Amino acid sequence: MLQIGIIGAGRIGKVHTQSIVNYVRAAKVAAIADPFLSDETAQWAQNLGVGRVTKDYRSILNDPSIDAVLICSSTDTHAQISLEAIAAGKHIFCEKPIDHDVERIQQVLDALEKAPRLKYMVGFNRRFDHNFRAVRRAVEDGRIGKAEVIKVTSRDPEPPSAEYAARSGGIFLDMTIHDFDMVRYLSGSEVEEVYVLPGVLVDPAIGEAGDFDTAVISLKLKSGALAVIDNCRRCAYGYDQRAEVFGSLGAAMCGNDSESSAQVWSGGGTTGEKPLFFFLERYMQAYATEVTEFIEAVRNDTPVPVTARDGLAAVLIGIAATESAKTGRPVKINPLQIPPSEV
Amino acid sequence: MLQIGIIGAGRIGKVHTQSIVNYVRAAKVAAIADPFLSDETAQWAQNLGVGRVTKDYRSILNDPSIDAVLICSSTDTHAQISLEAIAAGKHIFCEKPIDHDVERIQQVLDALEKAPRLKYMVGFNRRFDHNFRAVRRAVEDGRIGKAEVIKVTSRDPEPPSAEYAARSGGIFLDMTIHDFDMVRYLSGSEVEEVYVLPGVLVDPAIGEAGDFDTAVISLKLKSGALAVIDNCRRCAYGYDQRAEVFGSLGAAMCGNDSESSAQVWSGGGTTGEKPLFFFLERYMQAYATEVTEFIEAVRNDTPVPVTARDGLAAVLIGIAATESAKTGRPVKINPLQIPPSEV
Amino acid sequence: MLQIGIIGAGRIGKVHTQSIVNYVRAAKVAAIADPFLSDETAQWAQNLGVGRVTKDYRSILNDPSIDAVLICSSTDTHAQISLEAIAAGKHIFCEKPIDHDVERIQQVLDALEKAPRLKYMVGFNRRFDHNFRAVRRAVEDGRIGKAEVIKVTSRDPEPPSAEYAARSGGIFLDMTIHDFDMVRYLSGSEVEEVYVLPGVLVDPAIGEAGDFDTAVISLKLKSGALAVIDNCRRCAYGYDQRAEVFGSLGAAMCGNDSESSAQVWSGGGTTGEKPLFFFLERYMQAYATEVTEFIEAVRNDTPVPVTARDGLAAVLIGIAATESAKTGRPVKINPLQIPPSEV
Amino acid sequence: MLQIGIIGAGRIGKVHTQSIVNYVRAAKVAAIADPFLSDETAQWAQNLGVGRVTKDYRSILNDPSIDAVLICSSTDTHAQISLEAIAAGKHIFCEKPIDHDVERIQQVLDALEKAPRLKYMVGFNRRFDHNFRAVRRAVEDGRIGKAEVIKVTSRDPEPPSAEYAARSGGIFLDMTIHDFDMVRYLSGSEVEEVYVLPGVLVDPAIGEAGDFDTAVISLKLKSGALAVIDNCRRCAYGYDQRAEVFGSLGAAMCGNDSESSAQVWSGGGTTGEKPLFFFLERYMQAYATEVTEFIEAVRNDTPVPVTARDGLAAVLIGIAATESAKTGRPVKINPLQIPPSEV
Repeated sequence: MLQIGIIGAGRIGKVHTQSIVNYVRAAKVAAIADPFLSDETAQWAQNLGVGRVTKDYRSILNDPSIDAVLICSSTDTHAQISLEAIAAGKHIFCEKPIDHDVERIQQVLDALEKAPRLKYMVGFNRRFDHNFRAVRRAVEDGRIGKAEVIKVTSRDPEPPSAEYAARSGGIFLDMTIHDFDMVRYLSGSEVEEVYVLPGVLVDPAIGEAGDFDTAVISLKLKSGALAVIDNCRRCAYGYDQRAEVFGSLGAAMCGNDSESSAQVWSGGGTTGEKPLFFFLERYMQAYATEVTEFIEAVRNDTPVPVTARDGLAAVLIGIAATESAKTGRPVKINPLQIPPSEV
Repeated sequence: MLQIGIIGAGRIGKVHTQSIVNYVRAAKVAAIADPFLSDETAQWAQNLGVGRVTKDYRSILNDPSIDAVLICSSTDTHAQISLEAIAAGKHIFCEKPIDHDVERIQQVLDALEKAPRLKYMVGFNRRFDHNFRAVRRAVEDGRIGKAEVIKVTSRDPEPPSAEYAARSGGIFLDMTIHDFDMVRYLSGSEVEEVYVLPGVLVDPAIGEAGDFDTAVISLKLKSGALAVIDNCRRCAYGYDQRAEVFGSLGAAMCGNDSESSAQVWSGGGTTGEKPLFFFLERYMQAYATEVTEFIEAVRNDTPVPVTARDGLAAVLIGIAATESAKTGRPVKINPLQIPPSEV
Repeated sequence: MLQIGIIGAGRIGKVHTQSIVNYVRAAKVAAIADPFLSDETAQWAQNLGVGRVTKDYRSILNDPSIDAVLICSSTDTHAQISLEAIAAGKHIFCEKPIDHDVERIQQVLDALEKAPRLKYMVGFNRRFDHNFRAVRRAVEDGRIGKAEVIKVTSRDPEPPSAEYAARSGGIFLDMTIHDFDMVRYLSGSEVEEVYVLPGVLVDPAIGEAGDFDTAVISLKLKSGALAVIDNCRRCAYGYDQRAEVFGSLGAAMCGNDSESSAQVWSGGGTTGEKPLFFFLERYMQAYATEVTEFIEAVRNDTPVPVTARDGLAAVLIGIAATESAKTGRPVKINPLQIPPSEV
Repeated sequence: MLQIGIIGAGRIGKVHTQSIVNYVRAAKVAAIADPFLSDETAQWAQNLGVGRVTKDYRSILNDPSIDAVLICSSTDTHAQISLEAIAAGKHIFCEKPIDHDVERIQQVLDALEKAPRLKYMVGFNRRFDHNFRAVRRAVEDGRIGKAEVIKVTSRDPEPPSAEYAARSGGIFLDMTIHDFDMVRYLSGSEVEEVYVLPGVLVDPAIGEAGDFDTAVISLKLKSGALAVIDNCRRCAYGYDQRAEVFGSLGAAMCGNDSESSAQVWSGGGTTGEKPLFFFLERYMQAYATEVTEFIEAVRNDTPVPVTARDGLAAVLIGIAATESAKTGRPVKINPLQIPPSEV
């Protein structure tokens, strides 16, 4: 049985822990590390049968019985812990983004190149969502012909605080990064250029913090296809996560999930339920699939479904988008400094 | 150009007149007769270019320049005017039902047998609705295999007065008769037996008048298929007209029409428009298609799409349903006394 | 922690075991009994951390550390094991139906009356489905006014063998029993009379075995409402499980679930995914909710959501339906011999 | 009764003629002019009761009995005929665009300023479509709060020939101009800046002719809202015409129309009908409403629903979009040279 260490026991670390405990028979969460470990979290871990809890992630990295780690700590620690975990010979699942700094991501990629035996997967959870996967499958199966226009709608139900926005790396590296990855996933193509139409329409404080809360983002793809993402940090009807791929033979698209298919028809119209509230509701199953596939890749020594290179590519687009939003001009994506590979 | 006489200038007579004027280039409404002809109606007819208005329908029947008549007068006059029109050698479109009395309908059928040159069509307008036609087409094309279960939902937005109910022949001959025809149309089969679960849930006065306002009606079909109709005289969200045919390879079904496809998504859910209000809204186009196809059948000497025999069959089911509702027992349909033919 | 014994380790026994292991922190599956216990099942149980597996369910009933049992054995053993479990002072969750014989069910009810401390819940899993619950909630919240017509569509993807049909108690006690319970659940009313239009349209061998494979079932409810169920043992597009409640202010309805919301639009039309295949796919979450609520009722000493009386009521309707199908007449439901209570 | 002259008896001239004949009692098509008048068209006009057909539109302008003209001739004649018709004192309905040249449009606006009694309406037919109107109404009624993001999808079923593309003024003035107007209509705001991501993905010959066949167009609005249009000249499933307005309280959106609401559910999924084929199918009713509202505005001396200024505004955006597509840079819209007014 694969022995797993969880580094970071915040919201997403807990989600992954529970996914493994509930769904993944082939792996065991042997240890959890969190510098801010509370009694409550320790109790929660014990109830799930996790043998060891610690404030020091290095004690996990130094434990030779641990096969793989999930890095769920704060973003600014991802690259550093990744490097240490690679040095310790652990397989790694790292929450997105690897870092906001391209050079530091590059260091991780360089380290990985020297450790070809290790698996390194980045947590773009939406690639494991049943709806987006079904769209991707329709594209791959040729049901819509050649992909020409990709459209992604991505709206969060509630804006973060301006404080969060200020230290998040900005909307494009914090929120849109998922959508950049989705465009790459659905199109099977790299992105060449990005143009952003940004707005501060929800919370002026976010604008004062130097960030945006609304955006329409155009992307020119290497394949010749065009893409557009629209984002908003606030959505009155919940988490709006939709995509459409238009091609030469048709279009594939997916909608939101809601709690039930129930409708009420009355004098006021025909009313269905609004979408699920936020990512924990919408993507709970996707998180479980994601971590399951990571563990399968480790166990079977097969390629991980989302690579470090995918993690870098999305950050590069995010950086270009940030520049576009600030300059008002289209910006070319820095071509990857690593050998080309599959998206 | 075919010369048409309209007998009865009530609501439906006016609808047919306007359909011919607007859509049917090959026919002309030459005359309109209505015993209660008002100045307003006369003015309306004149504006539409109708040459002659009269209180006496016989003046239309006696006019040798008239090729065909549309009988849109009150139900109790349909059979009598039909007989006279047949005698006068006119082609006939008769609103449903031909009569509530089987013997009188039989007289019309007998007269028609002796006038094989004449076209006689009954106005089951729903057969010309785009939605039901598409379902029928899917069944005919074999897309769902052999039809096994037919389901018809038919709800009126507002109940009639108890007075109307009392003289309407009862809900099964007044309202459900359309649904009986729909079951025959969608299944391509005759009905053998009917069982009614009746209710007075909307207006006690309708019950006191000896009628019902709600019903679930089970039908055993000659083909072996089963059918169910549910009716209500009141529906808070408008005219509810849906059908489903379930078969060995799948199911075909249709929904309501609404004013637009617009949806509003908000904190209260995702809301679409309610169905169109009533038959004039939902079936306006079906009425035009219906009268157009009658005129085409006359002009090209081809079979009419809804025959007098269809008119009789639906009445026979309505009579059996009325008996079932009153006795609480399943009732066999009186087999048609005329040679078998296509549904 | 509540100690649970599972009696019967077939498909549904395994589903419940896994639900408890995965989702119910407050309970532990301490033992599993199955007379046909295989090595494979024993291994499966061990992997889930179940301490004890046995061929003798009595060893579970005799174990004073066991608080509650789930009876998931074959239908003909439900009543006997229920009686023994009551005598042993265990709380009981019993799969539907308690028995096909009313007298034996009555014995269970009698025994329960003398053991008022014990919880007894019947496994009508569909009451725990997100879609049907949302419809029920809309009805309870008064959003559609007074319920007048309840419609349930229930179609299985694939027919059972004729052998199974022959010993199943017949379609009405084996399959429709769920739909009878659904009508009671959605309407909040008892059923007074039933009329069945039965058919053998799928497999003649089922007919030769004395059973039916297709049916339209009309139900007269005590509340005055009307209901209709349509059943088929075969459905080309998967498990079709829908319901609609029509009332004085509107209608509430629910549809099927599918694997994703993805659609493909092409020259052939706009295509979505078919419904999930069968009950294990559609109701997996409902099973988990069901067993969770049973355990909550035991722990908190609150009423169970589905009572033995509910189990009896559905069987009484099934028996009357069977008689109606065989005689071709409407049949009154045997009024319950126990004090009236909530549906 | 208003006397109407039709100038240009091509496809759209015929559509308007028939709309007036069929639906508009208050107006009469008194004359039709077309320089390429065929016998067939003359016969068609006669059948509709049009008194006079001519090859010379000036004979209509010189006829004092004519109250209003519909300019349905080729685009390059719109401005010239408009100027002559204004001089002749006729009310004018002019198909879009007034011209591709801003100066010539300005001449028309200048002439109109000196003839304040005359109505001048531009034929942006989509504003009269039931779906877009319902979305606009939801926005106006405040149901979605302040409009923040407007999305328009507009795809034609089949591409024009490269020859047509070459002389069409380009996709942005020929096709997207409707969508520019739609953004203005739905948002109630002027457009400040446009950025185009163009593609030649359908037909290389269109690219060789200097035009594009696919585009994603971002628009910055004066209100602060953002908008995006995606266009393609070819769509395998028909005419794709959808819009969405996202706002602070929710979103309003509309979909396509199809021939019926019928669905077929089978082993291959759940399939509905594809959208209506092209503009004549989708917008037939909108064309009738459009011309009816023009005639009402003339008769009642009320403002026309689409002004010459609206016509100019859309052309200005189209010109900026063309420049953006060619330079790869965002381009500011030339602010209107006329006094501000309602959108």
